[in-house]
Amino acid sequence: MSDTIEIPPRSGDAFRMRSGDSLTVIDPCGRQVADLLAFNAEDLGEVISSGRTLDYAETIRLTTGHRLYSNRSRVMLDIVEDTVGMHDFLLTPCSVDTFDHFYPDLPRHRGCFGNLAAALEPHGVQPDRIPVAFNCFMNVPVDGETGRLQVLPPLSGPGDHIRFVARMDLVIGLTACSAPASNGGSFKPIRYRVDRA
Amino acid sequence: MSDTIEIPPRSGDAFRMRSGDSLTVIDPCGRQVADLLAFNAEDLGEVISSGRTLDYAETIRLTTGHRLYSNRSRVMLDIVEDTVGMHDFLLTPCSVDTFDHFYPDLPRHRGCFGNLAAALEPHGVQPDRIPVAFNCFMNVPVDGETGRLQVLPPLSGPGDHIRFVARMDLVIGLTACSAPASNGGSFKPIRYRVDRA
Repeated sequence: MSDTIEIPPRSGDAFRMRSGDSLTVIDPCGRQVADLLAFNAEDLGEVISSGRTLDYAETIRLTTGHRLYSNRSRVMLDIVEDTVGMHDFLLTPCSVDTFDHFYPDLPRHRGCFGNLAAALEPHGVQPDRIPVAFNCFMNVPVDGETGRLQVLPPLSGPGDHIRFVARMDLVIGLTACSAPASNGGSFKPIRYRVDRA
Repeated sequence: MSDTIEIPPRSGDAFRMRSGDSLTVIDPCGRQVADLLAFNAEDLGEVISSGRTLDYAETIRLTTGHRLYSNRSRVMLDIVEDTVGMHDFLLTPCSVDTFDHFYPDLPRHRGCFGNLAAALEPHGVQPDRIPVAFNCFMNVPVDGETGRLQVLPPLSGPGDHIRFVARMDLVIGLTACSAPASNGGSFKPIRYRVDRA
């Protein structure tokens, strides 16, 4: 069993995984979101793709048994365990611009986008390559009649987690989300653990 | 009034627009999909973003009055007219891989992805930069309870159209979609017209 690492509130991290490694993302306090990105470690042009994944899964509600695909239609990660069952794969990471849009009265923050860009920069990932993230624990219900979407507090409680297995060598970006609406109005850490194959 | 251009069935085109130009995408026969991509003509790293757009719009049902944003949170296109009201912004363009997945018994086809990659190549766009497209007339209802999504025949009839105004200089990619399910099982042309500002 490897060490569990804590991502402090409103910050991010990046790390490598080998094919077969397992990544567990843990919400230690409950009602906290973690934006997850994945890039092919050998060729950064290959990146996690919401559009490919939702097309193949035929659902926006991804959980145990679903596979996360790249823009080249190859499996990057399998979801092998999930104690929550509600995650978002529609929205891009919050940023300075989304803070200006949704929270004009709050202090500006670089958000998950800025945290991911900073954490991924040493791995060679350019900010413009950051796509829609797989937002662990983010609760974004869609009204089937009107199409309206809402960002509600996560359904996760303390200790809830989701576990992925890498299906190629990956660079992973991961955050403890910075947007008030995503986390029920408070900022908390995220923990993760990589178990080597 | 400029000329109307026809995109033959199962093919694609790419062209430039200046800020202020208007683009009308027309379904001449009805029940046909047109995948639309947009890149900043001056800096191809800036690209249309489903995640930013859905976040700001707070709906997956985009129509007249909605704005299509880039990955840098800037407005690329405004929707100024829409006779259908049902378009998709969740799924990536169909490709050889999606044909293998959904239609293993049909002849392979490079799909909208291959058509867009070929049409955009002379403009300097790399295939890996093709994100979720704004899929004009594509009918992808989402079940709000289960999250299940379906690809149903478009609601568009002959002559239905959607009109956009460019808010920056753009490279546009546009297709007449190649996937049976998207078009009610038949392949038809798409027409478009660019009216200069």
